[in-house]
Amino acid sequence: MFETIAWSDEGVVMIDQRKLPAVEEYPVFKTYEEVAQAIKDMVIRGAPAIGVAAAMGVALGAESIKSRDPKRFDQEFQSICTTLAATRPTAVNLFWAIERMKGVYRRHKSRGPAAVAAALKTEALRIHDEDIRLNRRMGSHGAALIQDGSRVLTHCNAGALATAGYGTALGVIRAAVEQGKRVEVLADETRPFLQGARLTVWELQKDDIPVTLITDNMAGYYMKQGQVDCVVVGADRIAANGDVANKIGTYSVAVLAREHQIPFYVAAPLSTVDLDVPTGDEIPIEQRSPREVTHLGERAIAPDGAPAGNPAFDVTPHRYVAAIITDAGVARPPFLENLRDLKGRAGNLDSHADSALSL
Amino acid sequence: MFETIAWSDEGVVMIDQRKLPAVEEYPVFKTYEEVAQAIKDMVIRGAPAIGVAAAMGVALGAESIKSRDPKRFDQEFQSICTTLAATRPTAVNLFWAIERMKGVYRRHKSRGPAAVAAALKTEALRIHDEDIRLNRRMGSHGAALIQDGSRVLTHCNAGALATAGYGTALGVIRAAVEQGKRVEVLADETRPFLQGARLTVWELQKDDIPVTLITDNMAGYYMKQGQVDCVVVGADRIAANGDVANKIGTYSVAVLAREHQIPFYVAAPLSTVDLDVPTGDEIPIEQRSPREVTHLGERAIAPDGAPAGNPAFDVTPHRYVAAIITDAGVARPPFLENLRDLKGRAGNLDSHADSALSL
Repeated sequence: MFETIAWSDEGVVMIDQRKLPAVEEYPVFKTYEEVAQAIKDMVIRGAPAIGVAAAMGVALGAESIKSRDPKRFDQEFQSICTTLAATRPTAVNLFWAIERMKGVYRRHKSRGPAAVAAALKTEALRIHDEDIRLNRRMGSHGAALIQDGSRVLTHCNAGALATAGYGTALGVIRAAVEQGKRVEVLADETRPFLQGARLTVWELQKDDIPVTLITDNMAGYYMKQGQVDCVVVGADRIAANGDVANKIGTYSVAVLAREHQIPFYVAAPLSTVDLDVPTGDEIPIEQRSPREVTHLGERAIAPDGAPAGNPAFDVTPHRYVAAIITDAGVARPPFLENLRDLKGRAGNLDSHADSALSL
Repeated sequence: MFETIAWSDEGVVMIDQRKLPAVEEYPVFKTYEEVAQAIKDMVIRGAPAIGVAAAMGVALGAESIKSRDPKRFDQEFQSICTTLAATRPTAVNLFWAIERMKGVYRRHKSRGPAAVAAALKTEALRIHDEDIRLNRRMGSHGAALIQDGSRVLTHCNAGALATAGYGTALGVIRAAVEQGKRVEVLADETRPFLQGARLTVWELQKDDIPVTLITDNMAGYYMKQGQVDCVVVGADRIAANGDVANKIGTYSVAVLAREHQIPFYVAAPLSTVDLDVPTGDEIPIEQRSPREVTHLGERAIAPDGAPAGNPAFDVTPHRYVAAIITDAGVARPPFLENLRDLKGRAGNLDSHADSALSL
């Protein structure tokens, strides 16, 4: 089995997701700047995985400046956090993880830079391990929604590669399979970065879960043929009202699912729910380079200099969403109320964990 | 300017659409078998262009056997037609063109193989030239539907490259531009064969018509942003009730268009309307090799041996279609009635032309 991201004495080790499935390579990122660049370049992607990478980046940065005096440490720590936060705008887990690291910093500040750096490293590892645990919990909640014999369509990669392990949407599928249900997956290839073709197919095949690859524009065809029983996707940010920002194309899948009366489920940890953002309209959508659309690797697939759009995400309004599967349980509409409830209950647990930690 | 397909003394010349936009190459196909293979391999594609290619293939085959005795000529002629008809199943223009060539054969049979071969060549050239004229007529009918300042989304390539010239959907856009309207095109890249990225962008740029390339899964995003005023696509076969078979992904675009109350137009010559097929359910959908999905050229984009679906077309039920633009005028719902009317009137014209021809 592979590891998406891990801490090592040399730095942060990540599987290079740009090279999959052709090459399975684990470069080490030795500075927080290298980690930031890796997030930008999509060596690692997927909202929860980005959160883990950012946390490890903060820890790595703090480690490298732990012999500074407290004032200098403080300045540089803030700048490390700013650099990591500027990598990608849409996935809220990035900011959530950095905020959590800042909280640790504040609580341990009085003990001096070296102690802070140690606490930050502990916290980054905790975020990593927690993520896998949360995904397993999400899986067990979500698996109840997957019937035996289901054909599940998924978009992008919301799998082990998008998280510290196990996955969100694919975690739900894995949990259903572990319960003995027969599940077949239809994987949208997910242009332009091909996360579905390259990553979802790769990791499901490793787990012997039957998967068929389709191009994004085939989803409607298979739904109309009656070959899709439900859709499960991940999320990069969920607004307070349940609007879901996720990989470009998710919205189209949601519209098609509703047209065919196929339930559309979103699986995401509560850290993806951003109560500060009232609706999806306020979620910033990253616009990436046109080159990702006009080229595949080095190969041009369009005339030289063709203008191309490349919004990396879209927003699916909550009315298309049948349920949001979180680590704290399954939220059904009305999401505004039910997400706040789940978040509130989990928030209490969090502060509990925090106070245990700060002892 | 380029030519999609032309007759020459050496055989049928076609621009190799598999190599565009990187290379503009015009191989000559010297036998009807080579023409059949070129249609199968998508050297040429697009329903009207396939019709022209098949007609030229029949003419080329007949030319090569014109010194046979009539009985042998008859046998081989039927076999030529069968080979060309077996190339691709969905686009009806292929069968329409072959039937038309068979009609010429029947009318000229008594004059002997050499005269038949000459008449077949004349007819193939007529189908070619007619196609451009019909497209221009379709354009002038359809342009009325395109407002000044429109942003038009199109899928696949229904342009000059999909026809003998000028195009169906892109013909409508060209006609609107010729009328002085400002039109911006949003082109779906159209996986897996990338006709949008490779062909539509290429030919619109040659005509200085502003075009922006997007991946198929971005159409919903741009519609939701209010950046699409209408959709115009071509068709491979239109059933009597107005159901439209067209390039895979067209159905998804139609569902999205209706969701956003954006008019969805189909542009196709009357030869694409197949009154023998009552609904889209009876249109055969070609399933192509999974390799076209798992590979881009020689490059694998998915793990080795990944199962993949590759339906080349889908059917858009007529209820999603605002209007069908034909060479004989614009059909609105109810299509069952209005398409039959247009076809009937044009059929009378056809028989008129036929009788003039058989004089």
